[in-house]
Amino acid sequence: MSVVWLNGRLLPAAEARIDPADRGFTLGDGLFETLRVAGGAARHLDRHLARLADGAALLGLPFPHGAAALAAAAEALIAAQGQGDGFADGVLRITLTRGTGARGVLPPPDAVPTLLMALAPAPPPAGPVEAVIARTTRRNEHSPLSRVKSLNYLDSILARQEAATRGAGEALLLNSAGRLAESSVANLFIVRDGRLLTPPVAEGALPGIRRALILERGDAGEAPLSVADLLGAEEAFLTNSLGLRPLLRVDGRAIGAGTVGAVTAALLTDIEAE
Amino acid sequence: MSVVWLNGRLLPAAEARIDPADRGFTLGDGLFETLRVAGGAARHLDRHLARLADGAALLGLPFPHGAAALAAAAEALIAAQGQGDGFADGVLRITLTRGTGARGVLPPPDAVPTLLMALAPAPPPAGPVEAVIARTTRRNEHSPLSRVKSLNYLDSILARQEAATRGAGEALLLNSAGRLAESSVANLFIVRDGRLLTPPVAEGALPGIRRALILERGDAGEAPLSVADLLGAEEAFLTNSLGLRPLLRVDGRAIGAGTVGAVTAALLTDIEAE
Repeated sequence: MSVVWLNGRLLPAAEARIDPADRGFTLGDGLFETLRVAGGAARHLDRHLARLADGAALLGLPFPHGAAALAAAAEALIAAQGQGDGFADGVLRITLTRGTGARGVLPPPDAVPTLLMALAPAPPPAGPVEAVIARTTRRNEHSPLSRVKSLNYLDSILARQEAATRGAGEALLLNSAGRLAESSVANLFIVRDGRLLTPPVAEGALPGIRRALILERGDAGEAPLSVADLLGAEEAFLTNSLGLRPLLRVDGRAIGAGTVGAVTAALLTDIEAE
Repeated sequence: MSVVWLNGRLLPAAEARIDPADRGFTLGDGLFETLRVAGGAARHLDRHLARLADGAALLGLPFPHGAAALAAAAEALIAAQGQGDGFADGVLRITLTRGTGARGVLPPPDAVPTLLMALAPAPPPAGPVEAVIARTTRRNEHSPLSRVKSLNYLDSILARQEAATRGAGEALLLNSAGRLAESSVANLFIVRDGRLLTPPVAEGALPGIRRALILERGDAGEAPLSVADLLGAEEAFLTNSLGLRPLLRVDGRAIGAGTVGAVTAALLTDIEAE
């Protein structure tokens, strides 16, 4: 039986009710985090909760319970689920919304947020991927929403649908200036002259947790990247909290040798050994 | 007692349950329409349902029940609510989402959409308004989402919060090129040389129903509009399905004489007499 944690208590998922007037449902007024659960523990939980708090500050959204209580809740949820179907390895999603409100765009001053945690089984290993450059839509680097993980995911959904139509597993989104921002669900890195480069947050890239961990190693930097930069790169890969995927082809053209390169392979080994 | 129509049946709002795995809640994967209800009838329901169908086609989202059944459902909901609190005059909201799905951005191939209709009391008459030009965020005219009424409303929420902070009732959003797109909840019109002008949809303006009705009168046209165009206009106003609001000041500067102009007043009278 699937269990969720909703507003302070564990309950069967089938009994969890989101109010039809919840602004997360009516206006996408909220945020979320996706975390890898491995060996019964949510990885980098502190960083995810810090990013969630940053997003809440941007939206003027109360951040309920506090980080320590949320960490305890995540632990309780993983333990409870582990007694049933058992997701000792899986994916934890934390969703924070503004809660219910009367009709209208301006948030109510007395908003009581909704906080939901749910577990899903670990996805199959992702492996290398081929991407297209989305033509349907672009990422809006002029919006601060590009820098938080909000519930407004339709641009990514459109891009991913386009990729599927065009026979690819992923889509890369350009920003309004026509430079690369990220993929539908991950940050983009390229290898140029042996050095790792990723688009700056100001270009419309989400400040990903895995992206930050790679930047903190010191052998990677930020730089605006054009499509030509990507197509001319030695290697490329995509990162999110669930892992790293080598990016082998873009719009049908091979990146580098079109195989998993040495820099990518080494990083993949490091991450899997974490 | 408040009543809603959810997936084919009328039920008390307190008993209506949105599944925590509904993609409308988890990813903003859906659309909505807001309609004025007057004298017990939803105004321009056919146009709203046509726009909803257009949006569903863009998102590859099944459009369930069909227009005739939804019109009957709206009528039944208004009648049922009329027996209780009575919203013969009010606001009808129709929300269509992709329904539940497993984790992940790509929609499930067998999505069963969620369709919710809810009524709210008529808002107080809106009256003239003062706006700011949002500095926090911009509208993304490169995304086709700017042309449908999707659940991804956070840019509008941010802009409206900024307006409140700056002491104004509304916010105007620029597009990525720095030209005017619309307000947080309405289309923008200006009067120049006695003629009505509104930004084209390609500039990031939602194709509003009231906007279309005004354009169809033949005395209005579409044109890209700069902030200077607005500040130099004779008159300006905002329109959405709930009505028309004279726009008297922007960023503290008067538009025209800073009072309700003759063209705006005449249109307001026409709309109220409809």
